[in-house]
Amino acid sequence: MDRLGQFTLQEKVSLCRGSDMWHTTPVPRLGIPSVMVADGPHGLRRQPDHGDPVGIGRSLPATCFPTASALGSSWDPDLVEEIGTAIADEALAQGVAVVLGPGINIKRSPLCGRNFEYYSEDPLVSGTLGALVRGLQSRGVGASVKHFAANNQETDRLRVSADVDERTLREIYLAAFERVVREAQPWTVMCAYNRINGIHASQHRWLLTEVLRAEWGFEGVVVSDWGAVHDRVAALAAGLDLEMPPNTEVSDAALVAAVRDGLLDEKLLDRAVLRVLSLVDKATAARRANGFDAAAHHQLARTAAADCAVLLKNADGVLPLRPDAGDLIAVMGEFARTPRFQGAGSSQVNPTRVDVPLEELREAVPAGVEVAFAPAFRLDGDQDARLTAEAVALAKRATTVVLFLGLPPAAESEGFDRDHMDLPANQVALLSALRAVNSRVVVVLANGSAVCLSTWEDDASAVLECWLAGQAAGGAIADLLLGKANPSGRLAETLPLRLEHSPAHLNFPGEHGHVRYGEGIFVGYRGYDFADRQVSYPFGHGLSYTTFAYGDVDAVVTGSVEGDDLAVELTCTVKNTGDRVGKETVQLYVGAPHGKVTRPVRELKAFVKISLYPGEQRTVTFHLGARDLAYWSSAHRRWVVEAGTYQLFVGASSRDLRLSTTAAIAAPDIPVPLDAMATLEDWLADPAGADALRRAVGTDTDGAPLGILGDPSLMRLLGNFPLHSLANFPGVGFDQATVAVLLERFAHNADVSG
Amino acid sequence: MDRLGQFTLQEKVSLCRGSDMWHTTPVPRLGIPSVMVADGPHGLRRQPDHGDPVGIGRSLPATCFPTASALGSSWDPDLVEEIGTAIADEALAQGVAVVLGPGINIKRSPLCGRNFEYYSEDPLVSGTLGALVRGLQSRGVGASVKHFAANNQETDRLRVSADVDERTLREIYLAAFERVVREAQPWTVMCAYNRINGIHASQHRWLLTEVLRAEWGFEGVVVSDWGAVHDRVAALAAGLDLEMPPNTEVSDAALVAAVRDGLLDEKLLDRAVLRVLSLVDKATAARRANGFDAAAHHQLARTAAADCAVLLKNADGVLPLRPDAGDLIAVMGEFARTPRFQGAGSSQVNPTRVDVPLEELREAVPAGVEVAFAPAFRLDGDQDARLTAEAVALAKRATTVVLFLGLPPAAESEGFDRDHMDLPANQVALLSALRAVNSRVVVVLANGSAVCLSTWEDDASAVLECWLAGQAAGGAIADLLLGKANPSGRLAETLPLRLEHSPAHLNFPGEHGHVRYGEGIFVGYRGYDFADRQVSYPFGHGLSYTTFAYGDVDAVVTGSVEGDDLAVELTCTVKNTGDRVGKETVQLYVGAPHGKVTRPVRELKAFVKISLYPGEQRTVTFHLGARDLAYWSSAHRRWVVEAGTYQLFVGASSRDLRLSTTAAIAAPDIPVPLDAMATLEDWLADPAGADALRRAVGTDTDGAPLGILGDPSLMRLLGNFPLHSLANFPGVGFDQATVAVLLERFAHNADVSG
Repeated sequence: MDRLGQFTLQEKVSLCRGSDMWHTTPVPRLGIPSVMVADGPHGLRRQPDHGDPVGIGRSLPATCFPTASALGSSWDPDLVEEIGTAIADEALAQGVAVVLGPGINIKRSPLCGRNFEYYSEDPLVSGTLGALVRGLQSRGVGASVKHFAANNQETDRLRVSADVDERTLREIYLAAFERVVREAQPWTVMCAYNRINGIHASQHRWLLTEVLRAEWGFEGVVVSDWGAVHDRVAALAAGLDLEMPPNTEVSDAALVAAVRDGLLDEKLLDRAVLRVLSLVDKATAARRANGFDAAAHHQLARTAAADCAVLLKNADGVLPLRPDAGDLIAVMGEFARTPRFQGAGSSQVNPTRVDVPLEELREAVPAGVEVAFAPAFRLDGDQDARLTAEAVALAKRATTVVLFLGLPPAAESEGFDRDHMDLPANQVALLSALRAVNSRVVVVLANGSAVCLSTWEDDASAVLECWLAGQAAGGAIADLLLGKANPSGRLAETLPLRLEHSPAHLNFPGEHGHVRYGEGIFVGYRGYDFADRQVSYPFGHGLSYTTFAYGDVDAVVTGSVEGDDLAVELTCTVKNTGDRVGKETVQLYVGAPHGKVTRPVRELKAFVKISLYPGEQRTVTFHLGARDLAYWSSAHRRWVVEAGTYQLFVGASSRDLRLSTTAAIAAPDIPVPLDAMATLEDWLADPAGADALRRAVGTDTDGAPLGILGDPSLMRLLGNFPLHSLANFPGVGFDQATVAVLLERFAHNADVSG
Repeated sequence: MDRLGQFTLQEKVSLCRGSDMWHTTPVPRLGIPSVMVADGPHGLRRQPDHGDPVGIGRSLPATCFPTASALGSSWDPDLVEEIGTAIADEALAQGVAVVLGPGINIKRSPLCGRNFEYYSEDPLVSGTLGALVRGLQSRGVGASVKHFAANNQETDRLRVSADVDERTLREIYLAAFERVVREAQPWTVMCAYNRINGIHASQHRWLLTEVLRAEWGFEGVVVSDWGAVHDRVAALAAGLDLEMPPNTEVSDAALVAAVRDGLLDEKLLDRAVLRVLSLVDKATAARRANGFDAAAHHQLARTAAADCAVLLKNADGVLPLRPDAGDLIAVMGEFARTPRFQGAGSSQVNPTRVDVPLEELREAVPAGVEVAFAPAFRLDGDQDARLTAEAVALAKRATTVVLFLGLPPAAESEGFDRDHMDLPANQVALLSALRAVNSRVVVVLANGSAVCLSTWEDDASAVLECWLAGQAAGGAIADLLLGKANPSGRLAETLPLRLEHSPAHLNFPGEHGHVRYGEGIFVGYRGYDFADRQVSYPFGHGLSYTTFAYGDVDAVVTGSVEGDDLAVELTCTVKNTGDRVGKETVQLYVGAPHGKVTRPVRELKAFVKISLYPGEQRTVTFHLGARDLAYWSSAHRRWVVEAGTYQLFVGASSRDLRLSTTAAIAAPDIPVPLDAMATLEDWLADPAGADALRRAVGTDTDGAPLGILGDPSLMRLLGNFPLHSLANFPGVGFDQATVAVLLERFAHNADVSG
């Protein structure tokens, strides 16, 4: 605490907030420098040192990598980690110590305006792709894992309370954060804007201190989302360390007063100061002024974009295009020459360069192949008969139409949620018109959040979902369309037939400051599966230009739940049975046995993306532990593994299960306390309780039980009554005095409950 | 209070609980008699004075009317009221003062074991059929409206907490109770077993006192469900008057002590005593010892059963049967000779007689028509090859097969919930086998809760859903099959294609003592419609042997929301366009405009069942008030009508909308308080707030707004931030001091918030 003693109270208070929009507070007197933070999970948004510090789009040039919407579909933590190192190098070059990302919130509804900044509807995919943290921090640049927690919509985002039960939080909304914190120890975690069960995330002690630090072992700084602090004293007491941007006018004084008046223990402030100082120390130690290799980063962005694209549909193998001399490829859609490759808001990057799909295609086609272009539709959504006519005329002549569709920038952004998930009607109408004159229409999609396909996909021979894939998307698309790259992206979120089918639909975006997470754990495919929904394309789906065969599944269980060393090892083989090198994402889903709580039909518990040459076969091994079989018991406030036979499925998607086997798991029962509210059935299920109750009630001369214990029909009707509620019923065979004696006798048992 | 002064404390305490299972406590010293209560919403279950007081099935003979599952499908409050008078006459004859019913809980899930005791998934149908209360009380017999409230499952029924938001409670789960209490002032309301948001219904002051008495004006006795009291002192303080059955061993002493120790205000006890005395007074005044006309009641039960049956399907007009001499009607299924006509549990009646469908059909067919019988399947669910072979052989010879299917008694009961909604597999297999040899198979269903049809109904030419239709069901079925009666029942609950499609499916029956009502207001058809679900048969559906034409819709709005006299009068015509007399249930659905909260696609707001001769046309008039257009605002804790254009649909079912019109409604805006958490958008939406904010921020020399007010892209991104959260952002144009001044200036506005 020596170091702390050097600071005045005001200095300590000022260290726990920024000095301005993007910097921590320096204390020159003591040689404490300021360090800089910057927006940008998929590329840096470093505002210039002078000029508008808020304005979007005027930041220093940086590589715009694929957004999380795309990276989520890569299912490739190594790729994401590599991007993290590249972003870190750019951060170091620009003097940035902490990059504000990744965003690992769960895509609860397709409508969330910030879905393009998030990876997946599944916590394992989201948490695994938190590998960006590893990449950043391996270079000495801090990450800020955000937005902690349950920040799943933009509507009323600074006030709305996510009303969500603990099991759902633990299994769905916190799980990705837990994984990243435990595995990568991020330098910072950013608290969310919203409230959780009525309490602002910035003031949520259970979340910021009990769970994040005490349970998960987080050692870094909790920083506020920009503007998330409403009561800095309460926030600091709850576990927030750094307020951004600083409220120097009001909150410093409040904090100083709270300490002086004894309303806030100065030790809490000291802890926060030490965490901030530790962050500054780490950042200072890593400081370097290298430049970065913009060309190499652009190439990485291109490879990444190709690895993220999801080939949803490929009828009759229309893709890859195999144009011959004399063929005419009709490239259509404004997006082909005005690409949309990132989203709007705080994550917006000023790219070092932008690949234009039309130009990349023109360059890539073999000699003698004509590539013609028609803008085909307006981005403002208005119908344009002239553009349509021109496009139809071109389509008539074309060998193949490659139509770039997508969401215009105005349709989605940080700051607001969508109210539908349809492509603009003018784009859908245009597709229909083209299809009428050309049967080979390939649709290339650019959109940050999921769009509905069911209304138009029959008009497309192939659909390549590229998401918002960064500045090199244009080149990647050319690579994919022409077969230079083989699509390997997999859906990290289900594409429903209609928005109304989303499990969150009944409860999104809430009203009057509250949004009930009424679907509970049944988010995404967990909900579509449990509620028996047909979908357009299931979670995990994605086609390739080659094919894969699965075989030889085997599962071995070792250790035990009781011994805390349970391990399930599953092996299988995967073989590339086609004629191209390709990547397959092998997915392991687990279905729990019927038990005390409702469980999803099956849940993703492991996955691996592997690359196979034609004919190559590889053995894949997955390792599961107790946690992978457990549910969170809100009653016992811990993870519980139930005994039984678990189903293990290996699939190419959540609904394309190729292999299955089972694992028989032994696990201890959790005793039910025989307390005042224990039911007759509870008592009879407990050997000692049943014995005591039977003795108390007694038997007739033939030894048959008396009262309700001898009447199966009454048992069926009243078995779920507590004993004391039954004791007033005449003829049940026991009275309140008997119940009191029994409860007294089993009080020790009741005490050991969960 | 004179009267109260005569009682000792112990006497008062004893008056507020029974003297035994079925009687209130007498005070002979003061001439206060005991009055008797008895189970039985669809017929009396009056236990004999001596002998087993609990045992089911050994009560005094009484008419078993159709259960609520069937009566709900009548959509006929007059019919239900008439049954109420008949039950009252039987009650008087047997010395019963209060009949424990009707049960008007909402059918939240098809699985609820007690659904056969409840009317509907819709609160208007449930509340309207609370007309049973009117019938009972018109004869001087008290009703006990139950189970108050949110008692929608049997699983863990004495402990589970229905976790449900206030809007959902008000619009769905309390609405039927509110209607019955306001319209019929029942003598008693029975509190439910379960907890609501963590508090036992028996101890729920908000429910039993604030809502039930203060808001709705209930003046009667709140009686506990049998065994629902866990803390009688807390219960009495919350508004419970009468504990049943009495816990004379413990709770009397606790109550006496609480009063003596000053822990319970004796005035609360006095109030309960006065209510019980008032009940005893009313009961004593009505006491008569008439007998009742068992034959007439049986005939009423038969008419009623016919009016409740829902003709779900009638391909090629196979019904009514028109047998000619020489025809062979093959009646099959054990239920044809062992009818299932009521459910199990506390509502079980010992019937005065039972009509057997097979015998009734044999009697009713014209001369020369053969009626043969085969049991066809076993009720225990086991396959029986011999029975199947016999049935198939008979079916081969038959003109028509009438197959009685249904749920065996073991499948559903008070006391437990089902875990699926399928007919037994052996019954479905049998149907399939019959269909293979005979194309005319009519299925007659007997089941208390909904069953899934989608797996088998293609094998049936017609499906007549009779529910559990009381002791005269057999005769009614003969009447319906042969066309002596014309089916007029309408589904009071949606029949989904699969259980998994139920809006409650994700959250039923809960776990660890809690069940989240995650679907909120989207119960039943509200959920199927909002979530775009195909169903087997929609809410409100039911065929007739005749046809009806709808026309001439018109709606007139008078009065206003502000004037508290808004009235919408809708008229239309309905004409019987077929050749038989028949009853049509005309249904009025309302769809609210897009507003501040999510609303159902449309909701039933009025209905009427009318009987029309062939060719007869009638004008139907519906009256709606403000409440019928309102939603419950949890923020403002009152009913709110939003301005806009309401859609009015007249339909023969919720998905067979025959007419539509609109009503333009004016309504005052609710001002948003400009408090500390008011957003920038809130300020700009308020004319005075916008003006003050614009002045504070100022304009440039050209008069254009400065800061964020001049930057539409920032507005889009940050418009949902409270002012104080924005003030720390450089360049927005205002600081914390400015915000403080603005908040001070508009504090009066903030104070007038809803």
